[in-house]
Amino acid sequence: MGMKLTKPRTLSGFMELLPNEQIVFNHFKQVIQQTYEKFGFLPLDTPVLEYSDVLLAKAGGETEKQIYEFSKGDTKLCMRYDLTVPLAKYVSMHSNELAFPFKRYQIGKVYRGERAQRGRFREFYQCDIDVIGKNNLDIIYDAEIPSVIYNVFKQLNIGEFEINISNRKLLKGLMEVLSLANINDEVLRIIDKKAKIGMENVNSMLSGLGIGVNELQTINEFLNITGNNFEIISQLKQLGLDNVIFAEGINELEQVISAINAFGVEENCVKIDLSITRGLDYYTGTIYETFLTNHREIGSICSGGRYDNLTSFYSEEKMQGVGICIGLTRLFDQLIANNIIDVNKMSISKAIILPMSKAELNYAIEVSTFLRNNNVNCELFVDEIKFKNKMSYASKKNIQFAVIIGEDEIKNKVVSLKNLNTFEQTCVNLEKALEIIKSN
Amino acid sequence: MGMKLTKPRTLSGFMELLPNEQIVFNHFKQVIQQTYEKFGFLPLDTPVLEYSDVLLAKAGGETEKQIYEFSKGDTKLCMRYDLTVPLAKYVSMHSNELAFPFKRYQIGKVYRGERAQRGRFREFYQCDIDVIGKNNLDIIYDAEIPSVIYNVFKQLNIGEFEINISNRKLLKGLMEVLSLANINDEVLRIIDKKAKIGMENVNSMLSGLGIGVNELQTINEFLNITGNNFEIISQLKQLGLDNVIFAEGINELEQVISAINAFGVEENCVKIDLSITRGLDYYTGTIYETFLTNHREIGSICSGGRYDNLTSFYSEEKMQGVGICIGLTRLFDQLIANNIIDVNKMSISKAIILPMSKAELNYAIEVSTFLRNNNVNCELFVDEIKFKNKMSYASKKNIQFAVIIGEDEIKNKVVSLKNLNTFEQTCVNLEKALEIIKSN
Repeated sequence: MGMKLTKPRTLSGFMELLPNEQIVFNHFKQVIQQTYEKFGFLPLDTPVLEYSDVLLAKAGGETEKQIYEFSKGDTKLCMRYDLTVPLAKYVSMHSNELAFPFKRYQIGKVYRGERAQRGRFREFYQCDIDVIGKNNLDIIYDAEIPSVIYNVFKQLNIGEFEINISNRKLLKGLMEVLSLANINDEVLRIIDKKAKIGMENVNSMLSGLGIGVNELQTINEFLNITGNNFEIISQLKQLGLDNVIFAEGINELEQVISAINAFGVEENCVKIDLSITRGLDYYTGTIYETFLTNHREIGSICSGGRYDNLTSFYSEEKMQGVGICIGLTRLFDQLIANNIIDVNKMSISKAIILPMSKAELNYAIEVSTFLRNNNVNCELFVDEIKFKNKMSYASKKNIQFAVIIGEDEIKNKVVSLKNLNTFEQTCVNLEKALEIIKSN
Repeated sequence: MGMKLTKPRTLSGFMELLPNEQIVFNHFKQVIQQTYEKFGFLPLDTPVLEYSDVLLAKAGGETEKQIYEFSKGDTKLCMRYDLTVPLAKYVSMHSNELAFPFKRYQIGKVYRGERAQRGRFREFYQCDIDVIGKNNLDIIYDAEIPSVIYNVFKQLNIGEFEINISNRKLLKGLMEVLSLANINDEVLRIIDKKAKIGMENVNSMLSGLGIGVNELQTINEFLNITGNNFEIISQLKQLGLDNVIFAEGINELEQVISAINAFGVEENCVKIDLSITRGLDYYTGTIYETFLTNHREIGSICSGGRYDNLTSFYSEEKMQGVGICIGLTRLFDQLIANNIIDVNKMSISKAIILPMSKAELNYAIEVSTFLRNNNVNCELFVDEIKFKNKMSYASKKNIQFAVIIGEDEIKNKVVSLKNLNTFEQTCVNLEKALEIIKSN
């Protein structure tokens, strides 16, 4: 008589992968981590749960509604909804113990109870880097960030990409010049839509705000600037706008673009785009967005920018910073949905060790130990099933080599090494087998 | 006029490390992951949040009280409190898509709202491996598990350790022979304390249960068996207990101990200990505990065993398994508390690039790019502060090499390479600098 069973199920909006998918996902995560470390970013791992009042010190509106918040005993708790607020908390708490500029990366899951829909996740990985300075932070770090992005996406090998750069001070200065600072936010929100809706629609929406013909013309001159990066900067200068903030924006953009080359970034991978604005209040200088050239519809896959004051809710100290975030869960989901990656090629094990019967078990164990001691991931398979079924087990796991061990192999001190991709099979000694496996 | 600040703070019972500690923690995590992968275990990453009824299908008592549970909309949610129940869910859901035996590892945070105290954490990493078989699972996997443990702790290099092994069938059979099956749980609970309270106290507690002199003598004969592993097995046989389950226990233990040698495990690292019992209802065969030889007071740092039916709450299918768990957060905390590891030796960056002024910036960027392209993690430091302060920045981060670039270095196409451990400084070209950095 069976007991009542619970139906096993996973919450919607929570990614849970099959092993072959998970292997590729983890490979992506590792490439990102290794690249972040190559640039000297330090690891950080903050709790998933925080005091509500700490995590929500600056939240509000849409964000706050999505948050997983609850009480345990007398304590109000929150699950983190990004990695930036925990960073601000951490830097404020440890400002005397950290070395500045503080370069940290954090790769971890964050939580937002959004309405579930295709491509939206309630639990998702963010992969962040930030450089935090006490009181000031050199503009050179704004140029280092896109070179990190460049190296990440080169390594990930998911097709051509383009990093778009601008500087918030340009639009801020422009609005000041045109005496539109009072409707700054509305204007920026419209301009940010340029890539989606086109310049004509942008113009009619701006007119709708009551912006006059002359001002509209200046905005159009600004947004219609084209050319390579240095041509754009030169034309920005030629606009002749008399505004300190606008001039600062040009100067910063020029320094960033110049330094990016020294960082070894291919020129066609970085492009100034004066229409990007990246939200309304957080960023104050350089801003970044990144697109897959052949899949712009996916949207930005890596965004960020420079901000003036990270810790304003926690501390009187002024912490400037520049950083980016890769939303890995969404990116991975989109890459699968658009057939950009194939999950049936990678494997954890390079080889599977197959003793023909229990009589060869001890030797098979020794072979697996030998391979592992020589840094080959491998799996010992001992179930006594048909050889054909062992082969389909290995193939399901994308394992490239089978090391087959029978009576004859032991007698002759060899193994039968079968390449499961090419179906070549050879009888070789263990050293030779290792050599072949490692060179493939 | 400042606005009201929120005091930044982290919940008690939640580990949050400083960078130098985090680097060592991550190194540990990576060693564990790489070793798990070396044995062919597949990665799994299940959500932190699950449906309450799914996660609590088998919970009860103390565990259930500690769980973080809350509602969002109409849904009752739970934060996972271990990685075994999510595995059971996952295997039940995907039983037709997975290749069996299913070998998976999962390294992730779990949550228990315990009363906070030194060494107890509410959020902590578990690092699990399990091998799951459909209907049956070869005993050889019970021997592979300790060889994984062995390789992990050899690599972690935190001192001598001992893996203790027993088999639950021995005590179960013994209780049957002695007609004590009705008080089986109480007896096991007392025996499990032997290492802590000594045999004399065990005996008086067993007498307190009303166990007779003859039965007590047999239990003592069993628990007093000493010798090397094969001597212990031989003496178990000589006890001459006529019980099927007891005989199975001996047979399984013998197979495990024999195979462990072929897996390349040093003999003195694995020791049969007949008094370990590992809780009362979950494990059904081989059981493991692991101790640091010179720090037994820390308790077991890696435990697990064989179980008969992983998915009984979700599925009619019978899934056998064997696995272990390393509680990394607690282990790391104890290693720090006992001064077993030093967190001031490891670094993310191997080198720091120091341009003497802005005039050398571009060349410094090129040097950093050259090193990174040759797989050297390095950090470019551009803040214009005193040289002494640059040195203390590097030293705070345990960085070994400073690559100093001034006017002369650029003219002579060299760099000044300073080893910050030995204070040696040499002028070398870039290729030579790379060679020195890589060979250290």
